[in-house]
Amino acid sequence: MENMNASTATAGKVIRCKAAICRNAGKPLVIEEIEVDPPKAYEVRIKILCTSLCHSDVTFWKLDAGPLAVFPRILGHEAVGVVESVGEHVEEVKEGDVAVPVFLPNCGECRDCKSSKTNTCSFGDGIYNFMPRDGTSRFRDMNGEVVAHFLSVSSFSEYTVVDVNHLLKISSDFPVDKACLLSCGVSTGVGAAWNVAKVEEGSTVAIFGLGTVGLAVAEGARLRGASKIIGVDLNSEKSEIAIKFGVTDFINPTSCGEKTVIEVIKELTNGGADYCFECIGLASLMIEAFHCCRVGWGMTVILGVEMHASPMTINTYEIMRGKSVTGSLFGGCKPKTDVPLLAKKYLDKELNLDDFITHEVGFKDINEAFELLLQGKGLRCIIWMD
Amino acid sequence: MENMNASTATAGKVIRCKAAICRNAGKPLVIEEIEVDPPKAYEVRIKILCTSLCHSDVTFWKLDAGPLAVFPRILGHEAVGVVESVGEHVEEVKEGDVAVPVFLPNCGECRDCKSSKTNTCSFGDGIYNFMPRDGTSRFRDMNGEVVAHFLSVSSFSEYTVVDVNHLLKISSDFPVDKACLLSCGVSTGVGAAWNVAKVEEGSTVAIFGLGTVGLAVAEGARLRGASKIIGVDLNSEKSEIAIKFGVTDFINPTSCGEKTVIEVIKELTNGGADYCFECIGLASLMIEAFHCCRVGWGMTVILGVEMHASPMTINTYEIMRGKSVTGSLFGGCKPKTDVPLLAKKYLDKELNLDDFITHEVGFKDINEAFELLLQGKGLRCIIWMD
Repeated sequence: MENMNASTATAGKVIRCKAAICRNAGKPLVIEEIEVDPPKAYEVRIKILCTSLCHSDVTFWKLDAGPLAVFPRILGHEAVGVVESVGEHVEEVKEGDVAVPVFLPNCGECRDCKSSKTNTCSFGDGIYNFMPRDGTSRFRDMNGEVVAHFLSVSSFSEYTVVDVNHLLKISSDFPVDKACLLSCGVSTGVGAAWNVAKVEEGSTVAIFGLGTVGLAVAEGARLRGASKIIGVDLNSEKSEIAIKFGVTDFINPTSCGEKTVIEVIKELTNGGADYCFECIGLASLMIEAFHCCRVGWGMTVILGVEMHASPMTINTYEIMRGKSVTGSLFGGCKPKTDVPLLAKKYLDKELNLDDFITHEVGFKDINEAFELLLQGKGLRCIIWMD
Repeated sequence: MENMNASTATAGKVIRCKAAICRNAGKPLVIEEIEVDPPKAYEVRIKILCTSLCHSDVTFWKLDAGPLAVFPRILGHEAVGVVESVGEHVEEVKEGDVAVPVFLPNCGECRDCKSSKTNTCSFGDGIYNFMPRDGTSRFRDMNGEVVAHFLSVSSFSEYTVVDVNHLLKISSDFPVDKACLLSCGVSTGVGAAWNVAKVEEGSTVAIFGLGTVGLAVAEGARLRGASKIIGVDLNSEKSEIAIKFGVTDFINPTSCGEKTVIEVIKELTNGGADYCFECIGLASLMIEAFHCCRVGWGMTVILGVEMHASPMTINTYEIMRGKSVTGSLFGGCKPKTDVPLLAKKYLDKELNLDDFITHEVGFKDINEAFELLLQGKGLRCIIWMD
């Protein structure tokens, strides 16, 4: 069947472009020419405008074993782009639309998508090494070798192909670097405060780890009127930027004197915080967060992906005193409906996105973005495709 | 200061009466004469009408070490009685009132009592080996030895003294044996379904352990219109009585063939139950309950007191997919306001209390009640004081 949307010069054809390929775990990405196939049914090929680096990219970049460690691969999952062409049955976007790809699917049809209680979606295999519908790749290197996808996005490429369930349209006059932030980290943090914890006015919040996700939690809590927003980080340099997102009290665990972080937080909150967020991905820190929550209704929200796959152990007597543990991906946000709402909050000058962008580099210098993140410098580095 | 409420012949005097004393861990209770002191300020002395045996009594009866293992002691915490006399400053009840003692305090003044988010109360030391205000006992044996209290109730005695924060008034025409049930187990289960999980119409529920608490969860879920109430118990005899409380599917883990309980529940619920309740007190079963919950919004509610003090380990990736773990004491019910509401539901013929009473014995045969519970026979055994 002929693709009625195919109106550009490149539509329906293989595109040759540059991509930053991860060929070996933990080694610098290599910018190479690749071939990008046209989108199949329900797929969209987009020209990436800018992308940014998230800790999950680094986690998978380092991963050297197991079913999720596939090479060569194109990483990257925070991005924004312009639709170059669409496959059959795609009606949601058309050529020229500005689109935000998101690692989390949102088919709109499954029981979860239709429920207001969750943002999980049953679409796809949950692994996302390749395209979700047929399990194949749209990328090849110049030797004809298949290059794997990543989290259904693979934005470290001038062009990528994304399933329509992993993509949403955004207004073309929205600043693209800010849109990029909304495709993962910032939505995850703000959403966790709003959708998962449902932080209320006057409540107390403790955040463990002040990277982009942690500070986005603070920003979400600030907008909800939390009376105390405690930030915990080993890097004291974070204390300054944290203020911009509403953090009222900064704790460096190495500077608490004879007190534990748990004791300091219990003192600051008169018995324990209403909501604790773990934004690092360490089971030991999740347990600490749990202890910092107040009895009665204290909630611990897990946002960090545990980096050693360790389980979290919880004291069941504490649970019986009304504490709870929960978590979410993408802050409980449904990508297609919640990202536009967050974008509107930015345009209304409520949501602070500007201060998350601390660095910018050109695509050829993408490895510098990795260096910055590894050294804990700044928050988000925008990588401009040109 | 003279006690203005003292109008009975015994008020203000020591009462000599019978009590079933636990002198050694795990040994039959011994019915002896004891002396019960008059109530001090904010205390109430009540004549027990009937009491029943809860698993927590058995847990503490067996306990032979640690700060909670004190002997001699008067166990018992599910009961109803008549106020014999009150101490200074007690205005909530007066001589002749029918009163239900509850192990959980409800002072009405603290931040928790004033919050609608919890039923925890900051009154008392949380240990309750003795009277909560002055840490002393109101009981002595005939050799003058101090006899310890239990959970601020100690109902295995003809007379007991209870702090006014641990007691509520109930209508004198309410059936006393049914009132007894509301002072712990039944309120815990029904409350957990209503206040903690907030079970909605059409939702699916899985209950691990079909004792009184587990079946009260079923009864609560039934009244909320749950579409499927799955009961799991090693004792297949429970399947019959479970039907009376709304259990729609019974699973004996030893009769699942090649399937695991998790697989059976996931099949029955199309992917996992909305709400899972652990009513036994085994960390391994809590983990199993957690696995039986559906991704997206599945909630595991811990009601069983872990019998080996083991922590529960949870897979943090599952938590990040929207599952949660929480728990409660007394089903999240605030004793002074929620017990009368449950009593009304019984009078309105909504709440089934009758079928929880499977046995009755006289006080002198109290050890038979222990035998029945240890053998897993029936649900509640009412122990009549006369």
